[in-house]
Amino acid sequence: MLEKYIKAATRKVKADLVLKNTTYIDVFCGVLRKGDIAIVGEKIVGTGEYEGVEEIDCKGLTVVPGYIDGHVHIESSQLSPEEFASLIVPRGTTTIIADPHEITNVCGMAGCEYIAKASQNVPLDVMLQLPSCVPATPFETSGATLAGKDIEKNIVNGYIFGLGEFMNYPGIINCDPDTLKKAEAAHSAGKIIDGHAPAVYGYDLNGYLCAGISTDHECVYKEEIEEKISKGVYVHIRHGSSTKNLGNAKYITDANLRRFILCTDDRHAADLKEKGHLDDALRKLVADGLDPVRAVICATLNAAECYNLKYRGAIAPYYLADLVAVDNLKNFNAKYVLKNGKLVAKDGKPLFDTSKRYLPANVLNTVHLKNMKADDFVLTLKGKKAKAMTILPGGVVTGCEIVEVESRDGDVVLENTDLLKLAVVERHKMTGNIGKALFKGYGFKGGALGITIAHDSHNVILMGDDNESMAKAANCLKEIGGGMVIVDKAKGEVHSLTLDIAGLMSSRDAESLQSDSRALIERAHAMGVKRDYEAFMSLAFLSLAVIPKLKLLDTGLFDVEKFSFTDINA
Amino acid sequence: MLEKYIKAATRKVKADLVLKNTTYIDVFCGVLRKGDIAIVGEKIVGTGEYEGVEEIDCKGLTVVPGYIDGHVHIESSQLSPEEFASLIVPRGTTTIIADPHEITNVCGMAGCEYIAKASQNVPLDVMLQLPSCVPATPFETSGATLAGKDIEKNIVNGYIFGLGEFMNYPGIINCDPDTLKKAEAAHSAGKIIDGHAPAVYGYDLNGYLCAGISTDHECVYKEEIEEKISKGVYVHIRHGSSTKNLGNAKYITDANLRRFILCTDDRHAADLKEKGHLDDALRKLVADGLDPVRAVICATLNAAECYNLKYRGAIAPYYLADLVAVDNLKNFNAKYVLKNGKLVAKDGKPLFDTSKRYLPANVLNTVHLKNMKADDFVLTLKGKKAKAMTILPGGVVTGCEIVEVESRDGDVVLENTDLLKLAVVERHKMTGNIGKALFKGYGFKGGALGITIAHDSHNVILMGDDNESMAKAANCLKEIGGGMVIVDKAKGEVHSLTLDIAGLMSSRDAESLQSDSRALIERAHAMGVKRDYEAFMSLAFLSLAVIPKLKLLDTGLFDVEKFSFTDINA
Repeated sequence: MLEKYIKAATRKVKADLVLKNTTYIDVFCGVLRKGDIAIVGEKIVGTGEYEGVEEIDCKGLTVVPGYIDGHVHIESSQLSPEEFASLIVPRGTTTIIADPHEITNVCGMAGCEYIAKASQNVPLDVMLQLPSCVPATPFETSGATLAGKDIEKNIVNGYIFGLGEFMNYPGIINCDPDTLKKAEAAHSAGKIIDGHAPAVYGYDLNGYLCAGISTDHECVYKEEIEEKISKGVYVHIRHGSSTKNLGNAKYITDANLRRFILCTDDRHAADLKEKGHLDDALRKLVADGLDPVRAVICATLNAAECYNLKYRGAIAPYYLADLVAVDNLKNFNAKYVLKNGKLVAKDGKPLFDTSKRYLPANVLNTVHLKNMKADDFVLTLKGKKAKAMTILPGGVVTGCEIVEVESRDGDVVLENTDLLKLAVVERHKMTGNIGKALFKGYGFKGGALGITIAHDSHNVILMGDDNESMAKAANCLKEIGGGMVIVDKAKGEVHSLTLDIAGLMSSRDAESLQSDSRALIERAHAMGVKRDYEAFMSLAFLSLAVIPKLKLLDTGLFDVEKFSFTDINA
Repeated sequence: MLEKYIKAATRKVKADLVLKNTTYIDVFCGVLRKGDIAIVGEKIVGTGEYEGVEEIDCKGLTVVPGYIDGHVHIESSQLSPEEFASLIVPRGTTTIIADPHEITNVCGMAGCEYIAKASQNVPLDVMLQLPSCVPATPFETSGATLAGKDIEKNIVNGYIFGLGEFMNYPGIINCDPDTLKKAEAAHSAGKIIDGHAPAVYGYDLNGYLCAGISTDHECVYKEEIEEKISKGVYVHIRHGSSTKNLGNAKYITDANLRRFILCTDDRHAADLKEKGHLDDALRKLVADGLDPVRAVICATLNAAECYNLKYRGAIAPYYLADLVAVDNLKNFNAKYVLKNGKLVAKDGKPLFDTSKRYLPANVLNTVHLKNMKADDFVLTLKGKKAKAMTILPGGVVTGCEIVEVESRDGDVVLENTDLLKLAVVERHKMTGNIGKALFKGYGFKGGALGITIAHDSHNVILMGDDNESMAKAANCLKEIGGGMVIVDKAKGEVHSLTLDIAGLMSSRDAESLQSDSRALIERAHAMGVKRDYEAFMSLAFLSLAVIPKLKLLDTGLFDVEKFSFTDINA
C-alpha cells in the first residue's frame, strides 16, 4: 500500500480522491493553509496541487480533521450505535472513545461485545473502554459484576481499547485490593485508564493518579483544572445534555493548550439531532471567544495524542483521511464528512445505510420480573413522619424532606398531598427486591410512570399515586422488554415506548423514536409532571447512589452522604 | 506496587526518597512550582510536602525531568555504552534514542545486540533503533547487509524500539520495493520510524512522509522546518560535535513548540567530557534567548510524546522518577541526577560503576585483511592530469580538483606536491578490494595515517605519501584489531590507538582513551596535518558516498552528484 501512497503523493499517479481548493487547518503550526488535499485509500497522502480520480471542489470551505469525542456513553442517546453514528458522523465526529458502562451494568460483557460489533457497521471508529465500575456501588443489584478478575480477563481483548472512567476514586485512594487489581490489569495490558474524580485535590489526587490514570472529564473549577493539568491529567471540556463544562476553555493558555480535549459524556438524541455533537461544542466555544484553530486542536490532535491514536487528528501525509469540510470556523456546519478517505456524509445527512442493525438476542428481553400486583406497592409506615425525596435544581442531586403522613389499612395515603410513591424493582435476577420511598413535588397525578433506565444498575423505577397503576406499569415494562410507560388510571390507558436493547436503547431509527418519545413525555406533563423535570429522565437519576443525598435502590432507601441505608420512618 | 505508590502519595507511609524544598518545572503548564518531590521505587508519587525514608535537600536548586536525546549514535563517542553513560548521565540525560548504525555496518545484528546488552549495565534507558540503511549505499562493501527481509525479521525483537533514521529517501520516494518493505515491517510491528531527509521539500517530502516517518534531525532552513512541522514531522534541534542546529529554536512558536525535540546525533567524547551533552544544548539555547522552560520542554515532554514514552518527561504522579537537580536554568549544572528513582550522579560524577564492561567476542577482531605490501598502494595513472579530492569548509563535503601529475615506474610521484595518496581497504570480507585516489591539501608529510572508522561502511581508510608506510599502517590496524595509526617513516616509528570494539569504539575508560587520543592527534598535526582538519576524523568522512561530491569507496572513486563511479584520470 505504501507504494500507492507514495506514487500519488509524488504525483506520478492520480490520487483516489482530491479535495480541491481548500482552506485547511494545520494543527501543528496552528494556522490556516490553502491547497488541495490528496487521498489514497484511507490515508491523506499530501497537500499541494493534486489531481484525483474523483474530486470534490471545496472552494469557500474550510477543511478540518475529523473530531474525536474523548468520552461518551452511547447509551445516553437511547439509540443503537448505528443510529447514534447516523446523527454524529454527519456533524463531523469520526472517532469516539466510548464507555459502555450502562449496557454492561445490564448485560455484562455481552453489552460490550454488542456495542463493539454494532459499531463495525458504521463509518465511525468506536474505541471501546471496558467499564471499570460495574456495579457502581456494592449496595444495589445490577445485571452484572466486573470484579478485578473479570477486568483482568477482558482488558486483554483486542476489541477493548482501555479501561473506562474510574469512578471509584475512594477505592483507589484507600487501596481497595480488587479496585487496584483493575488498574494493574490495564497497565499490564498496556492500556490507558480514563479518570473520573470530581473535586479531588492535593494528596488524594496524587494517590488517585498513582494508579496511572490519564484523563478527567469531571473538573470544572479553575484551581482543580490547573492542578490536574500540572499533574499530567488531560482535561476534557464536556458538552453533554445536562453536564456542560465548556467554561473550562477559559483556562486554556499557550502552554497548557495541548492538555485539553473535548467530550460529550451523555447527550440525548434530541440534542444530537437538533443542536449537534462536537460541532455544537466548537460553535459555542468559538462564540465564547476561544480561537477557532485552538478549539479544533482540542477536538482533534490533542485527543489523538491523549489516546495514542497515531496518525490521526491532523491533515498531513500518512494521516487517516478523516476530514470535515465546514462552511466556516464560526458555524462549523459540515458540508462534507470523510471517514477513512470515503465520503460518508453530505449536508448533514449520512450517506451510509443504518437500516440493517446488529441485534443479538443477549441484549434483548432483559426485564426479568415476576407478575407484579397492587399489593407489591403497599408502603407501610410506622408513624406520622417520614422521609421524602425531592430533586434539587440541576436535576440529579436529591434532597430529603421530613413530611407528615397519614396511613390507612397499612398503606400510606397520598390523596390530597403532593407526595408520590417511588419504587425500584430489581429486574435482572428475579430477586423480588423492591425498594420503596416517598417523593415530594413531582406534580404527577392519576396513575403511574415507569422506566427501565435507572443509573447505574438500571432496575425498574416507578412513580405513582396508585398501587394498581404501578403494578400495571411494571408489568407493561416487562412485556415490552424495557422502555418507558405511563398508566392513566382515569382513562384506563397504558402508553409505552419500547427500549428493547437492554431496556436502555431502541433498535428503531432515531427519527421515529424521538417523535414517539416526545409524545410520551408530553403525556406525562399533561398528567401533571412539572416542567422543571425531564418527565422520565429525572426518574433515571433517583437511584444513582454516588450523588447526594437521598436515593432509592432495589435494596432500600440510601443516604449517600452517610454511605449507608436509612429508615424511611423519621 | 500501586498500593505502595498510593499509600506514599496520600502520606499514609513515608516515601522511599524525597527531594525536599525544590523549585521544579511543571512542563504541562510551562511554569515553575515549589514543593517536595516524593518518590517510591522508580516512580514519582507526588508533589507537595512529603517525608521520605531518605531525603535530599534541594533548596536553591531547580529540578527538571531527565533529558531525552531524540537521536544519537553512541559510536561517535568512540566509547562503550557504559563509558558513554558515565559521561552523559551526570549531565542529566536519562534516556536516549540510539541508532547503532555504525557498529551494525561492521558487525550486523551482533552490533545491535552488543549495544543493547552493554546498555543494561548502566542507569540510562537506551531505546534502540534498528538501522534502516545498512549499507548506506549499494556501491561499497560493508560488514553486513540488512535487507528488507532482515528488517522484517529483526524489527519485531523486544529489544528493538523502532526503525532508525531512513537516510535512503530516494529509495522511498522512488518506491524501491526492498526499501518500502523495511518501512512496512516497522508499521506491522507498530514501531516508529525516524527520518533523515535534508532539504527534501514539497511533493518529494509528501512521498517520503507517506512511508510513515515521524521525525527529522537534518533540517536547518526556516521554510524547511515550517513545512516539515506542518506535515506532522517532529523536528530535532541538533547539538552534535560538528553538526550544530541550535538555530532551529528560532522558529519555535506558541503553536508549534510541542513539535521540537533535542538531539546530539554525533558527539565526540571530548565534547561530552568538556562541554557536556544536552545540558550544553540547553545552556546555549537559553543563552541564545530561548525561554528556559520551553527549552526543557523540548528536551523532555516533547521527546517523550514523539517517541510514545508514556509517563516520562514530566514531574507528576506515576511518572518515571528520572530527575535532574540543576543549579539554575541558565547554567544547567547538574548537582544531582536520579534515574528510576535512584541517585546515580552527583556534582557531575557518576555514582555507578562502569569498570565491568560487557565485551562479547563477536564485536572484537573485526579487521580482516591479508598482509598488506607496499605494492598494494601503487597508483598507476594514464596521463598527466588526474582528479584529486579536497575537503571543503565544514569538513564533510568534498571537492574535486583536476591536478597535474607525474608518474615514475608506473606509480604517481608525490614528492614536491601537496598531494597525498588515499586508500580505502575493504576490511570485512577479505575481498582484497582497494580503492585508491589522490587528496590535495591535507598537509601531512613523511609516512601514513590510518583509521578503521570510515562512514558508513567503516573500511580501513589510509592517507600517506609513502607506499611502505601505508602498508605498515594497514598491517598495524589489523594487528591491533582496529583504531587509529600514524607511521613516521623518518623516525621509523608506528604509533597507534586501539578501538577494539568493531574498530569504532574502545573498551577502555573514557579518561585514558581521550588522553591517548589527544596525543595521537597532536602527533598527526606535528607531521603537518593542517589545523583546519580533525587529523583522523576528517578522514572518516572521505568515503561517505551520500555527501557530495567526490568520495572514495573500497570499490573505487565515486561521484556522489552523478551517483556513479568515476575515473581518476581526467
